[in-house]
Amino acid sequence: MTVLDIDEERLWTRLMQLAGIGATPGGGVDRQALTDGEAQAWRLVIGWAAEAGLEASADRAANLFLTLPGRDRKLPPLMIGSHLDTQPTGGRFDGAFGVLAALEAATVIAGQGATPERDLVVVAWMNEEGSRFAPGMMGSNVFAGFRPLEEIRAAVDTRGISAGAEIDRLLSAFPELPVRDPGFALLAYVEPHIEQHVLLEQAGKAVGIVTAIQGKKTWEIVIGGEKGHAGTLAMDRRRDAVAAFARIAAALYAGIGGYDDLVKFTIGRVDVEPNAPSVVVDAVRFRIDLRHPETTTLQACAQLVQEICAREAAPCKVEVKPLVSTASTPFDEGLRIMLGAAAAARAIPAMPVLSYAGHDALQMAGVCPSAMIFIPCRDGISHSETEWAEPAHVAAGARVLLDVAAGIESFVR
Amino acid sequence: MTVLDIDEERLWTRLMQLAGIGATPGGGVDRQALTDGEAQAWRLVIGWAAEAGLEASADRAANLFLTLPGRDRKLPPLMIGSHLDTQPTGGRFDGAFGVLAALEAATVIAGQGATPERDLVVVAWMNEEGSRFAPGMMGSNVFAGFRPLEEIRAAVDTRGISAGAEIDRLLSAFPELPVRDPGFALLAYVEPHIEQHVLLEQAGKAVGIVTAIQGKKTWEIVIGGEKGHAGTLAMDRRRDAVAAFARIAAALYAGIGGYDDLVKFTIGRVDVEPNAPSVVVDAVRFRIDLRHPETTTLQACAQLVQEICAREAAPCKVEVKPLVSTASTPFDEGLRIMLGAAAAARAIPAMPVLSYAGHDALQMAGVCPSAMIFIPCRDGISHSETEWAEPAHVAAGARVLLDVAAGIESFVR
Repeated sequence: MTVLDIDEERLWTRLMQLAGIGATPGGGVDRQALTDGEAQAWRLVIGWAAEAGLEASADRAANLFLTLPGRDRKLPPLMIGSHLDTQPTGGRFDGAFGVLAALEAATVIAGQGATPERDLVVVAWMNEEGSRFAPGMMGSNVFAGFRPLEEIRAAVDTRGISAGAEIDRLLSAFPELPVRDPGFALLAYVEPHIEQHVLLEQAGKAVGIVTAIQGKKTWEIVIGGEKGHAGTLAMDRRRDAVAAFARIAAALYAGIGGYDDLVKFTIGRVDVEPNAPSVVVDAVRFRIDLRHPETTTLQACAQLVQEICAREAAPCKVEVKPLVSTASTPFDEGLRIMLGAAAAARAIPAMPVLSYAGHDALQMAGVCPSAMIFIPCRDGISHSETEWAEPAHVAAGARVLLDVAAGIESFVR
Repeated sequence: MTVLDIDEERLWTRLMQLAGIGATPGGGVDRQALTDGEAQAWRLVIGWAAEAGLEASADRAANLFLTLPGRDRKLPPLMIGSHLDTQPTGGRFDGAFGVLAALEAATVIAGQGATPERDLVVVAWMNEEGSRFAPGMMGSNVFAGFRPLEEIRAAVDTRGISAGAEIDRLLSAFPELPVRDPGFALLAYVEPHIEQHVLLEQAGKAVGIVTAIQGKKTWEIVIGGEKGHAGTLAMDRRRDAVAAFARIAAALYAGIGGYDDLVKFTIGRVDVEPNAPSVVVDAVRFRIDLRHPETTTLQACAQLVQEICAREAAPCKVEVKPLVSTASTPFDEGLRIMLGAAAAARAIPAMPVLSYAGHDALQMAGVCPSAMIFIPCRDGISHSETEWAEPAHVAAGARVLLDVAAGIESFVR
């Protein structure tokens, strides 16, 4: 059997070509969702895909699919990819690396001459970044069935233009493209991405097998007390909001901060009123940032936030306002084993890593076995013109993806 | 025996006349220490004192004395009075009431025809307010021997003029005045003053017998941690300054806030850096305001501040910077009993009250038995143009002072 391999130079060259669309003077990329830039990017990758014999199609959420047809087109396909949109001050790798690594893997598999058993689909999800139309992960969210298409079409950008109008405009620019309804059965989903953190770099690893995307919950807590003179008001008549904050925060750090080795608990913002040295404080507002890779633990800790605030606030009042709530998402264990085995077989230094940010794989994990491949990015910097990934790491991540995509038939039998 | 009594109308009229010196359009008084206004005030009260047969003198700290000579001039005299200087936005009663109530009492005693056994001295202390030359209570501080005269002479105002030069200027305006060295033996000191708080008003009392001036200690505490990402930095590697603050503040409120019924413990100011919701905080600066009427308790609580900060800060660093430290000063029990008996004999509603602010009596308590008489001021407002005391309360306070001054010989025998 021939050992398949990616074309490192082709992949790197395509990454740099793609980065030319929306290129900023400082070396970054501004190619926000559903802009003319994204349409140009579609045109480029659709062209590359056609050269490899892949069929382009889209869905009504403006997700782009590049499909290598299999022998039995009714079997649920393997899907690989990421997104083509960027932050307004984005870099060359966030999203683009995943789409082009997937295209490279599909191109290599297509080039071997044999038809795979099932379809292999390269995907470019619509609006992962959420910078133009909030929130992000829109395309995958609709594809996975978590939000109705009409709801995301109603989102508007700062100029009052709706996502729906821009989806229609993008699709109408590609009249030859078949457009289906979002959502179809998948065998599995694998997304390559830059890590956007320093763990791989610090450990000297070329590839990270992502264990999970940690969930996140944030709150604003408002403690209401009563103003008073520091020198005269008897302690037992005070409703001192700083005293209540101290009890609440100490109990939260003790109860949640030490919950297990994985929890992240932070009070990063604290605002005190009137904030004068000799006045008993009547209001403390603070923010809680809670993260954990396991949903049940995240929920248990969220329950503790409620309980501790309620228990420790008296004689002050307390208001617990939830702000953000993102589910914790562990990735499929079978896929993770395959990814690790593929890296080991190639002697690519790899390690399990947690994802601290959200990705389209977060949505897909809700509908099929999903996984992610991380590669290091310099100093963990992302969403920045200085975002950078080493060509060797780009190649390593693509190789692991290729091997898993090529070998996945054995995985499902 | 004739019952002595004050002349209510004379006292009130003099208060209003004195308030004309430095009068502000809004009904207040701006008559700061060692200004031409204070010299005018001296001239006025020296004139009133001369009418009553009192001898004017001063000391080199520009404290003014108006003495009713006794039979034995070697006996330590009773001293009564307060101060004539005001805040720049001061009122008509703070200080002036004490000096004029004392002058009224001495005038009445002088007017009865019999010579008292010992001197009775009405005092107007130099620079109680500390608004022009900081800190306040300068004259009494030097008189009591707690600070050398040369040190306070070196203080300068915002225009660069020294207190020493202004003392010399004031004294040279009164060339006829004998000037002695500050400090001489006293039998006792009694100071009438407006309460500058609402306790008497709320209780419906005309007079407060001041139990003590509570001591005060303040600190700035700086907790030094390390910045970090709320989503990625493991809890056991964090040096979270908010977590340390919560532990420290909770322990301080529990340990000191509940120390006894008299303690006042306040954290009124808290500043957090960088104060962003998803960043582990690397610095918390906060202020402690601690007050207690008993010195030993104040010191014990101050020790707790040090211990708790040191114990709870790790893994952060903590710096405990003392700012203000004023001793707690209980007033003489014998004098307090006399004041209470005098009020009771006249059926003047009186109650014991704590003084939450410093007064010249704080200094004098260090050198002789001392006491204070408070009268209510409207809504507790002071250092303001709207400062106001009822004529009936002014008279009540002066009557209690008169009776104690007239009767004090029996007290010391």
